[in-house]
Amino acid sequence: MVKDFKPAKLPHYREPTIILFDGSQLPQIGAGTWKHSDEIAPKAIYTSLQLGYRLLDGACDYGNEKVCGEGLRRAIADGVVKREDVWVASKLWQTFHAMEHVRAAVQKSLEDWGVEYFDLYYIHFPISLAYVPFETRYPPGWYYDGESEVRHSRVPIRETWEALEELVDEGLIRHLGVSNFNSALLMDLLKYARVKPAILQIEIHPYNAQLRAVDYAQSQGLAVTAYSSFGPQSFLELKMSKALHAPSLFMQPVVTQIADAHNKTQAEVLLKWAVQRGLAVVPKADDVRLQELNLRVGETSWMLSEEEMERISGLDMHLRFNDPADEFEGCHIFS
Amino acid sequence: MVKDFKPAKLPHYREPTIILFDGSQLPQIGAGTWKHSDEIAPKAIYTSLQLGYRLLDGACDYGNEKVCGEGLRRAIADGVVKREDVWVASKLWQTFHAMEHVRAAVQKSLEDWGVEYFDLYYIHFPISLAYVPFETRYPPGWYYDGESEVRHSRVPIRETWEALEELVDEGLIRHLGVSNFNSALLMDLLKYARVKPAILQIEIHPYNAQLRAVDYAQSQGLAVTAYSSFGPQSFLELKMSKALHAPSLFMQPVVTQIADAHNKTQAEVLLKWAVQRGLAVVPKADDVRLQELNLRVGETSWMLSEEEMERISGLDMHLRFNDPADEFEGCHIFS
Repeated sequence: MVKDFKPAKLPHYREPTIILFDGSQLPQIGAGTWKHSDEIAPKAIYTSLQLGYRLLDGACDYGNEKVCGEGLRRAIADGVVKREDVWVASKLWQTFHAMEHVRAAVQKSLEDWGVEYFDLYYIHFPISLAYVPFETRYPPGWYYDGESEVRHSRVPIRETWEALEELVDEGLIRHLGVSNFNSALLMDLLKYARVKPAILQIEIHPYNAQLRAVDYAQSQGLAVTAYSSFGPQSFLELKMSKALHAPSLFMQPVVTQIADAHNKTQAEVLLKWAVQRGLAVVPKADDVRLQELNLRVGETSWMLSEEEMERISGLDMHLRFNDPADEFEGCHIFS
Repeated sequence: MVKDFKPAKLPHYREPTIILFDGSQLPQIGAGTWKHSDEIAPKAIYTSLQLGYRLLDGACDYGNEKVCGEGLRRAIADGVVKREDVWVASKLWQTFHAMEHVRAAVQKSLEDWGVEYFDLYYIHFPISLAYVPFETRYPPGWYYDGESEVRHSRVPIRETWEALEELVDEGLIRHLGVSNFNSALLMDLLKYARVKPAILQIEIHPYNAQLRAVDYAQSQGLAVTAYSSFGPQSFLELKMSKALHAPSLFMQPVVTQIADAHNKTQAEVLLKWAVQRGLAVVPKADDVRLQELNLRVGETSWMLSEEEMERISGLDMHLRFNDPADEFEGCHIFS
């Protein structure tokens, strides 16, 4: 059961948006939901919406769409927000890439969120894995047997995309996105897509600045969402050794100096660096104080100078933390 | 007109092969043809075949298939080699990716080489550009107008692949390959390919060791061919600034020390490092002495120790020289 909570009064901020190719406006600072626990999720979503977040970034794989949906439903019921003012986003897990599974996967996520349509729906990874029924395990994760076997399936990306296009036609999805796609895959997709992808979501932080991938996607009219804006920080609780061994971005002198100069936290500086590049961000925060700080990064009362932006970008070392090939057999999408 | 030459007697070597998924044997040390001038090409191809090279690595884009073919035809006429003992390889240029242009492009290259079929035919780059008729310019190069405009076309890779599969069915092509494909693109291709790609050809040298891409391709049953085995060296004559500024691999202490220890040249060590990884190589040499040295890298009378292999691989810095995005608009295939 979802824990009950008593809503408190909170300040409200209006966040900036990114104009998409179809003229609609993507809220630039989204509430990330990855790793939200069942206990925290409903309240965290509720307070996000109170504060003014208008983009909720979910995914089947996060295993918490139902509890996140709980927070959304209550916020709507309490008049905090109207459904049409929020972008609800989810992502297709790779066990559901086959034409015949896409619809059911989308419908399951819709039910969990308690909404009639997604404003944004991504392919989570450009990898297709063997189908795992909902009854067997949900979310299914990477392993076919739940333990160690990565079983690939033979579904090309185009099949999945065409299945998603149908759901756009039917109104279940408003915008399509791709996540963890490299530029070459995106280029290929753009050549057959009837419904053009609106957004690319990839890992971006100063250690993995992705200048080229961002340039390419933006040149093709896509908006780009940066995930894991704090770099290794996002992966510490998973005890990922690459992240444990990387120097924290919060301790990088370049970041701390700039934070001090602006009297801001390092987290705010890292988000600001992304937002000033025109990227959307989806930081996750349990604590309402942090949610507020993150959201207010969108305010223009302070800005990084061009020189500060470049110093931060200078930390780039093409260091990616979320690379499935590190752990899962045959899941090479970044080499 | 092709310059005449008088064949000299040369030693002959039998080269090692890589067994492909269909049981056929790819010669491991091929004669590269990129940048062979019209004057040198016929003789260079001829002497390569005399020495024992059994793989000729050509491409429409190299602009010299006719003169290379001259050398091949003469070698066959002189009884140096039989057609069926040589692997003749070519590559599809990106202006010919559309279904209706693939066949003509293959036929043109076949005519230029003077052969009835290709043993191996690659997609040169996973990029499709607007068609340029043979009469306008051949080879067409990157620019639609020959000067500055990169004009993309909307041909997905699958369309090109299916056109090539038909030519395999008809016997014009024996094996298909992909060049400059990253692992994610290769993964997607493997999910729809009726005719499986046999070979991946990518830029590999110690500065760009490509451990992951090689692992992935080999795990999927493809052989891997390394191009630009000498790293920056291959790009100096193009005055590429990235190459001019990179330290020469021939001067790297790791390479020179190992070369000295084996009483070999640095070039031999660099090729050996690739060959011992099970890669095919396609070094280009104008000079018959160098052709002989390169070919003899396949001999097992000397080998690099595991420690030497690792020291060379330790030079890896993911430094790629042949990246179209450096020069050509929207040609982002490695980000």
